[in-house]
Amino acid sequence: MPPGTAIAGRVCAGTELAELSRSERFLRACRGQEVDRPPVWLMRQAGRYLPAYRETRSGVTFLEACRDVDRAVEISLQPLRLVGTEAVILFSDIFVPVVGMGVPITFSPGPTLETPLRSPAQVEALAGGDPRAEVPYVFEILGALRKALAADEVPLLGFAGAPWTLAAYLVEGRGSKEFGAIKRMLYGEPELLRELLARLTDMTVAYLRAQVEAGAHAVQLFDTWAGLLSPAEYREWVLPTHQRIVAETAVSGAPFILYVKDSAHVVPELFQTGADVVSLDWRVELAQVAERFGAETSLQGNLDPSALAAPPEQIAQRVQDLAEAAAPARGHILNLGHGCLPETPVEGVRAFTEAARGLAGVR
Amino acid sequence: MPPGTAIAGRVCAGTELAELSRSERFLRACRGQEVDRPPVWLMRQAGRYLPAYRETRSGVTFLEACRDVDRAVEISLQPLRLVGTEAVILFSDIFVPVVGMGVPITFSPGPTLETPLRSPAQVEALAGGDPRAEVPYVFEILGALRKALAADEVPLLGFAGAPWTLAAYLVEGRGSKEFGAIKRMLYGEPELLRELLARLTDMTVAYLRAQVEAGAHAVQLFDTWAGLLSPAEYREWVLPTHQRIVAETAVSGAPFILYVKDSAHVVPELFQTGADVVSLDWRVELAQVAERFGAETSLQGNLDPSALAAPPEQIAQRVQDLAEAAAPARGHILNLGHGCLPETPVEGVRAFTEAARGLAGVR
Repeated sequence: MPPGTAIAGRVCAGTELAELSRSERFLRACRGQEVDRPPVWLMRQAGRYLPAYRETRSGVTFLEACRDVDRAVEISLQPLRLVGTEAVILFSDIFVPVVGMGVPITFSPGPTLETPLRSPAQVEALAGGDPRAEVPYVFEILGALRKALAADEVPLLGFAGAPWTLAAYLVEGRGSKEFGAIKRMLYGEPELLRELLARLTDMTVAYLRAQVEAGAHAVQLFDTWAGLLSPAEYREWVLPTHQRIVAETAVSGAPFILYVKDSAHVVPELFQTGADVVSLDWRVELAQVAERFGAETSLQGNLDPSALAAPPEQIAQRVQDLAEAAAPARGHILNLGHGCLPETPVEGVRAFTEAARGLAGVR
Repeated sequence: MPPGTAIAGRVCAGTELAELSRSERFLRACRGQEVDRPPVWLMRQAGRYLPAYRETRSGVTFLEACRDVDRAVEISLQPLRLVGTEAVILFSDIFVPVVGMGVPITFSPGPTLETPLRSPAQVEALAGGDPRAEVPYVFEILGALRKALAADEVPLLGFAGAPWTLAAYLVEGRGSKEFGAIKRMLYGEPELLRELLARLTDMTVAYLRAQVEAGAHAVQLFDTWAGLLSPAEYREWVLPTHQRIVAETAVSGAPFILYVKDSAHVVPELFQTGADVVSLDWRVELAQVAERFGAETSLQGNLDPSALAAPPEQIAQRVQDLAEAAAPARGHILNLGHGCLPETPVEGVRAFTEAARGLAGVR
């Protein structure tokens, strides 16, 4: 597409915008301010598809890698150097702060509890409230990353898992296709579930705020399994947790990105949270959502992660299609619709970020 | 709800309707003709949650049970006697006719191929075209069931797996969370995938027609994994297969029920197939869909299978909510939003069918 092509409604080929740093472009896109083109990064961009990642991770457990500041910094920075992504996200896991709450989680490879969390006593016993004391290494990693990125003006992202998703694993005791255990708690012991979600929500607010104080420019909340609920249950059990986390994190001033996987049935609810950016699964019509909800909220997404296995010219075409589909929105961050898969070809990721950089002048 | 409560817009407390047989009620609901109340059955109603099923299945492999006419008839009839369901569905598996096409599939426990189907030679080698010769036992089971059910006038359902879902397993070689292999074929060898889907579509049409000729009153097509596609890919690769199967099966005169799991992002497309009944996942707003698409098409669904673990009074409330939500549609069949889970309490299933029978006079 030639520079200046009018697909965004608010095209700007001006010289100031062409000189935006990666941080400025990213933060302006989050806030719906004019930019030259959409910034690009990938969920789970620091992961097993990268040979360098596999090397840095070898010989240590997943949690050890999350706790080892130098190693986590190295892993976080790899995609910036190796595949041209334009934001860096803290290398960690959504269960790191939950381990900090005193829950004995192991990874084998997914999060596993020997005794699933199902009793009032177990909920009562959850510590939490001071993530800086409980998982100090997270904030050391962020501080070190912020320092490493300062010269290049690259945005640094923090993140947290959402209460429903954390609770789904804790109550089940492991990953699951259906997460029936938390639903049984919802039907049979709703007050216990409410208390568990309240505690996880409190922790998440404190955790995200502390991440911003430690240097994160923006934060993303990941709700991987809330999409398993019916619309009515989602509104009762999930939406209020998102609303509270967004509202109470807003005091930090950092843009808030909300991602809910498999959320085509609750799209309007995603836009009732107050999030600055809604990050969409690939199974929504980006153009329709941009038209209907994009005036007040920026969008992120939403290429199917499997599509990074396509030939480079197909990836470039899809990037252009996504940029055009998102054009009615006030801002757009190019990303996948879910995390990068382990079998993803590195060239596919490079083709994705290169195509994004080739969109100069489209926004 | 008192008999005659006007939630359906077309309530009828007339005596003729009150005397509908289960077959008449079911078939009238499929066609959008007046009925006294919605009929009820459950996807995967003959399954591991039933102790009698586990007993009848013990000592034989899954495929052996599908091939053993007496055993398959017994399993098919168990839910009718034990949990009050109002339709009987052939006990079989979506891969039975694919085994008939000469593909060496084993179940461990999901369908598995030692050599995934990825080459033109493998696609060329697929037999198919005469399911009666390839899997004669399927039609013997249907014939025996039709005979067994005649006196009670219970509807008998046939079924098939949809081409995309069958192909997803065949190309992957096994079950998967992402089914990346078929997507890689879609990107890299679209003509090969088109040929594979065309052959599976041909087979499915012949298979469903033969089921109706053997005694099925109605048929359901199951597309469990098409929901993993983006809307654009779904329209290109899945919708045409549904449309062709519906159109070419229609000559049989039996109502056609279409089920696609995880399909909230392609709801309009479900109603472009010509199916008489669209069976919905629990993650769609039944009321909205009934309002928007229900005038021309009947609906089936859509309780979350996990909700059968709720206390009986909650199940009864949900059944009533579903009936009210579906009221704007021309017809409604009470069912789950996906198959019955192995851990489902039998009492939950009974509470579900009892609540449905308690809806007398609502439709």
